[in-house]
Amino acid sequence: MRTIDWVDDAIVIIDQTALPAEERLLRLTTVEELIAAVRSLAVRGAPALGVAGALGVALAVRIGSDLEEQVRAIETARPTAVNLARGARRAASRIPDGPEAVLEEALAIRDEEIAASAAMATRGADLITELCGPRPRMLTHCNTGALAAVTVGTALGVVLELHRRGALGDVIASETRPLLQGARLTAWELSRAGVDFRVAVDGAGPFLMARGEVDAVVVGADRICANGDTVNKIGTYAHALGAHRAGIPFLVVAPESTIDADTPDGAAVPIEDRTQDEVNGSFPAANPAFDVTPHDLITAIVTDRRVIRPAEKW
Amino acid sequence: MRTIDWVDDAIVIIDQTALPAEERLLRLTTVEELIAAVRSLAVRGAPALGVAGALGVALAVRIGSDLEEQVRAIETARPTAVNLARGARRAASRIPDGPEAVLEEALAIRDEEIAASAAMATRGADLITELCGPRPRMLTHCNTGALAAVTVGTALGVVLELHRRGALGDVIASETRPLLQGARLTAWELSRAGVDFRVAVDGAGPFLMARGEVDAVVVGADRICANGDTVNKIGTYAHALGAHRAGIPFLVVAPESTIDADTPDGAAVPIEDRTQDEVNGSFPAANPAFDVTPHDLITAIVTDRRVIRPAEKW
Repeated sequence: MRTIDWVDDAIVIIDQTALPAEERLLRLTTVEELIAAVRSLAVRGAPALGVAGALGVALAVRIGSDLEEQVRAIETARPTAVNLARGARRAASRIPDGPEAVLEEALAIRDEEIAASAAMATRGADLITELCGPRPRMLTHCNTGALAAVTVGTALGVVLELHRRGALGDVIASETRPLLQGARLTAWELSRAGVDFRVAVDGAGPFLMARGEVDAVVVGADRICANGDTVNKIGTYAHALGAHRAGIPFLVVAPESTIDADTPDGAAVPIEDRTQDEVNGSFPAANPAFDVTPHDLITAIVTDRRVIRPAEKW
Repeated sequence: MRTIDWVDDAIVIIDQTALPAEERLLRLTTVEELIAAVRSLAVRGAPALGVAGALGVALAVRIGSDLEEQVRAIETARPTAVNLARGARRAASRIPDGPEAVLEEALAIRDEEIAASAAMATRGADLITELCGPRPRMLTHCNTGALAAVTVGTALGVVLELHRRGALGDVIASETRPLLQGARLTAWELSRAGVDFRVAVDGAGPFLMARGEVDAVVVGADRICANGDTVNKIGTYAHALGAHRAGIPFLVVAPESTIDADTPDGAAVPIEDRTQDEVNGSFPAANPAFDVTPHDLITAIVTDRRVIRPAEKW
């Protein structure tokens, strides 16, 4: 199963707004359809968005008109994950070489994300075992599985690798309001994989850690800044505070493509504020889609190439 | 409007499970009905539960059979808020003096909670103004308004008193998953009072504080332990961690009746774990209804009689 792929001259995605009730594929044949799918979170997760950005440019090149404007529209469909704009720009850099070169670049990004997921799963599982010993009980937030990448995933890829090794205790999936990526998508992936897990409301995370029910927290990232500050789904920072107070490891698992050396720290990242109707039909809402976890709360960042200890200098 | 009262030989409550869609009164004429209302959270909030416990005993005495067993059932209908058992026991202490004496004691508890709410609102608003200056922007969690007490409320009573004085900035109501007491009940009370507010998902609280959008956090309490550790609705502890890191005041507002000198600290409090269907229909859930905020994270506890600084000795 690939979350996003290129099939018969179109982008094919699993519609994540329909899960877990329905496993539906969407075939996207225009840039407008791709942008709508990104905005509605039918495709989401930083690595998957990088592939979506690149394949979107491959689509745009085939259609051909207003190319510069189309690339810009793809880059800016959502503001926070660096991968989207970076994937789009990298594919667009091959425009002078023709449509096949653009597609080739986009498929290379897809393949790199697949390889990166596998590398992170191995390295992350090794590190968790080193830090926590056998059968750790893990808490994760949002969805960072295959659905957030192309296959395997980032933080959830690590959890599933531990499960594959017989080295996992159990899992708490933080439900991730307002759009419930944890309760819908992570629960769906864990259930399919046969992992013991429970869903918890987001506000329960720090208390479950304080009560001794969690040995480590693993999350993904939408953007990692030059100083290690990590932008991820809203609610991540609260879990990091809880892990810090409980004295348990807090790990970020993300591909190198998520690291943005051009952004000095979390304060410099544009945080997407989404509409109130996601939170509450009746009343006004404050709805930031992401938050910033300061680097001093992060035990380690695991990428496809290295382990970074952001509390130390890197 | 009284959340709970004694009318024509019965307990009358506002059914909080129906708000904000419907303003419905329930008339409870048996102990079984009262216990069911407590368990379903049709009546909730520590001060209101104290009155419910006492009026429940007044009902039991009128009905008359199996009195000891009925009182025990009322006391233990929910385990965490000390007020429920304490209200029931205080009313039961008058059983030797006859049914009218029991009712008189229960109504005295009701009247004391009304007076306590007014005293807390004044003292809490004074303290917030002292700590934060004019027009602070407040974040609150769960519902601690009139619906949680008999009238006025605890933490939300302070917010509404600031509004009445023209000394309030705006309010963020944390939605309070899984049962959405913030998004349903607090939003309903704030809206009726004409206060500027926004609802936010629970996981956003600490980030909104870090981003500078909150000047103080005010919450209620279900039980305050001898060392100042405070048991309150799940999600409170995460907000306390956020406030501590952001360097803003974190205030607990609760009547003296919530203080339990017989419980040394938070670890000694039985935390109610509720059913998974409140969280998620499809998958297993971890669903603690309350959490413990350690006393060192609490700037001040405001009661109807005093201001306690639990980080200091008291």
